[in-house]
Amino acid sequence: MAKINENYLKLKAGYLFPEIGRRVKNYSETNPPRRIIRLGIGDVTLPLPPAIVKAMKDASEEMGTNQGFKGYGPEQGYTFLIEEIIKNDFKTRGVDLGVDEIFVSDGSKCDTGNIQEIFSTNCKIAVTDPVYPVYVDTNVMAGRTGIAGEDGRYGNLIYLPCTKDNGFEPDIPKEPVDLIYLCYPNNPTGTTITKDRLKQWVDYAHKNKSIILYDAAYEAFITDSSIPRSIFEIDGAKEVAMEFRSFSKTAGFTGTRCAFIVIPKELKGYTDSGEAVSINQLWNRRHTTKFNGVSYPIQKAAAACYSEEGKKQVKSNIEYYMNNAGLIKKGLESLGYDTYGGINAPYIWLKTPNSISSWDFFDKLLKEAQVVGTPGSGFGPSGEGYFRLSAFGKKEDVEEAIERIKSLKV
Amino acid sequence: MAKINENYLKLKAGYLFPEIGRRVKNYSETNPPRRIIRLGIGDVTLPLPPAIVKAMKDASEEMGTNQGFKGYGPEQGYTFLIEEIIKNDFKTRGVDLGVDEIFVSDGSKCDTGNIQEIFSTNCKIAVTDPVYPVYVDTNVMAGRTGIAGEDGRYGNLIYLPCTKDNGFEPDIPKEPVDLIYLCYPNNPTGTTITKDRLKQWVDYAHKNKSIILYDAAYEAFITDSSIPRSIFEIDGAKEVAMEFRSFSKTAGFTGTRCAFIVIPKELKGYTDSGEAVSINQLWNRRHTTKFNGVSYPIQKAAAACYSEEGKKQVKSNIEYYMNNAGLIKKGLESLGYDTYGGINAPYIWLKTPNSISSWDFFDKLLKEAQVVGTPGSGFGPSGEGYFRLSAFGKKEDVEEAIERIKSLKV
Repeated sequence: MAKINENYLKLKAGYLFPEIGRRVKNYSETNPPRRIIRLGIGDVTLPLPPAIVKAMKDASEEMGTNQGFKGYGPEQGYTFLIEEIIKNDFKTRGVDLGVDEIFVSDGSKCDTGNIQEIFSTNCKIAVTDPVYPVYVDTNVMAGRTGIAGEDGRYGNLIYLPCTKDNGFEPDIPKEPVDLIYLCYPNNPTGTTITKDRLKQWVDYAHKNKSIILYDAAYEAFITDSSIPRSIFEIDGAKEVAMEFRSFSKTAGFTGTRCAFIVIPKELKGYTDSGEAVSINQLWNRRHTTKFNGVSYPIQKAAAACYSEEGKKQVKSNIEYYMNNAGLIKKGLESLGYDTYGGINAPYIWLKTPNSISSWDFFDKLLKEAQVVGTPGSGFGPSGEGYFRLSAFGKKEDVEEAIERIKSLKV
Repeated sequence: MAKINENYLKLKAGYLFPEIGRRVKNYSETNPPRRIIRLGIGDVTLPLPPAIVKAMKDASEEMGTNQGFKGYGPEQGYTFLIEEIIKNDFKTRGVDLGVDEIFVSDGSKCDTGNIQEIFSTNCKIAVTDPVYPVYVDTNVMAGRTGIAGEDGRYGNLIYLPCTKDNGFEPDIPKEPVDLIYLCYPNNPTGTTITKDRLKQWVDYAHKNKSIILYDAAYEAFITDSSIPRSIFEIDGAKEVAMEFRSFSKTAGFTGTRCAFIVIPKELKGYTDSGEAVSINQLWNRRHTTKFNGVSYPIQKAAAACYSEEGKKQVKSNIEYYMNNAGLIKKGLESLGYDTYGGINAPYIWLKTPNSISSWDFFDKLLKEAQVVGTPGSGFGPSGEGYFRLSAFGKKEDVEEAIERIKSLKV
């Protein structure tokens, strides 16, 4: 009898974003008075920059020629892309990496979801709360948690609350934890971390032989040069951390799909008997066995982000979104909302007015203003009473959304 | 302490194809007398057909416009592609499917590797021997097997030998098995299955509440119309099977990346307490949580395979490869080799001369003829003494390879 993985039955309802999609679809079928403005899911809206489109078209053309056709490429990604990544994203921040320390993939959702496979199912996991749901759900699926309690928290998972009271800065755990997911600039709160604080996490990980799974998908939105863009800017991080990066938000690749993980050779995990094992080699085995590389034209498109033209165009898109972030933040603040983030991150995290629940605020915003946001409680119990707005819309939509929110009855 | 998944340590050496790559690289660095001809890894060589290139270029262009830009698409794939798949690949064979029974992905290697996650780690697994290594390795990683014995077989895994003696047709197990991987047309042996025989498997699965994981990545190479192209041509298969399909070999997408799984709504797995659970829904949860859809231009390229022009161009490429298969088969037979497959499949499976080992034949072929093939033992213990040649090369290379093999000292 084909038995299923019953850990899946522990999962709560649907994944957050499909649930939002369902509610918006239901509502839009009842003929809303106005066009719906979507500032919910963190999806970009500006077209791909011309340099990237050109690279993708050229590579497609190449695939149609005898000389230029490419079959299976290296599972880990083409060197032409990896070398640009190292040179532009890391070397510039004083971080040296080898080509075999980068694994190109089709998305950080996949990478952050799949990475747990190479670790023991007995690992003790810590996540911030609120948190990107993929970190939690994929550990539930793998059986590293108990069932969800009435407070919405899974058993055997360590939640590090981030609320207004602690300035959205998670406390470093007092007990030993094996794997820690950190995301900076943070999704969903839009907050950042200082080098000093990140150093404390690195020190903690050294002391406990823990590994930090550092999600830097939003690093391109950092404007303050004192804020670390990579965890590897911190001394000693290579021994205790890996880093997830993505072209999704940086270069508008949410529908184009390209990302990568950095796993330094120095990073070690341990067997039950205490023997050190290279995490880079473990992931390489996983990646070459279960993945077959990113489409060649897409890797060419990603590499074009680092050309002189590409860099300028990508930067200009980021500035556009950060201008939106400023508009949302200023707009909400002028209406008396408490807001967080939105300065070095494309997300604005707000306290719901009159402490109404996150989903109630979602429904209210949808039905009264036809604006879609993301309920904070969808990111974890400590997100209850908060709400996320994304800066990835069109400027005119952002402006109109703020106008509409003005007339919200709260 | 970050403990690793120790099941990975049970894995034998490297994944087969990287090991071949390593040996070829080492050899080619010693200045071989002639150019190396690669008929090893099943990688296509003809350029992408013009209709496909055009679709990919057009979609890239679209991504650069305000109106045409696409961000996150449905994780399961765009309806425009799924509808073409259903209409052309299934309806034509009398199989009705709904759009929510197809999950588009970036490759069958990923799909066949990831699918085991939704099943219990206690499931009893059967594989044919020889077999595509991904089925085995991913179950080893998940902890469903014991360690590898001296005969190269993992404990707790049921091997169904396919050799000359049984006409490469695996016996249906006498004991109950939970999950069975079947691949037809078969990789690596190039053999096919009749409807009657497939019906026996479906009946077995009904009787034992097992699930058949049917890999039909090579169905496009079937020329004999009496041979089933889909397991769903068999009555009752929807309740006990899912099917893997790919554009890799069919349309030359090995470097472009697109595939799909068909999971009928009727397919059920079971909890420990015997409750039936929809496999379609389980996979949907997995797919939406750990995957973010295939790149939009790539899905457009895949859909172009079904346009009138696309179909003709794809068919012509398949005929080209099948002509190669015929040349290899005839060439080897004229030299006295025992060969199998190569008629409804792009692989020729041969008995090594004088019963030398598969890897010895690999080295001999590489060093004396500068031809790369795949050692049968890389696919499992019963592949020892066999060797796989792929028909995916260029015609002139295939002809030259046969010429070179003529002068092999065996």
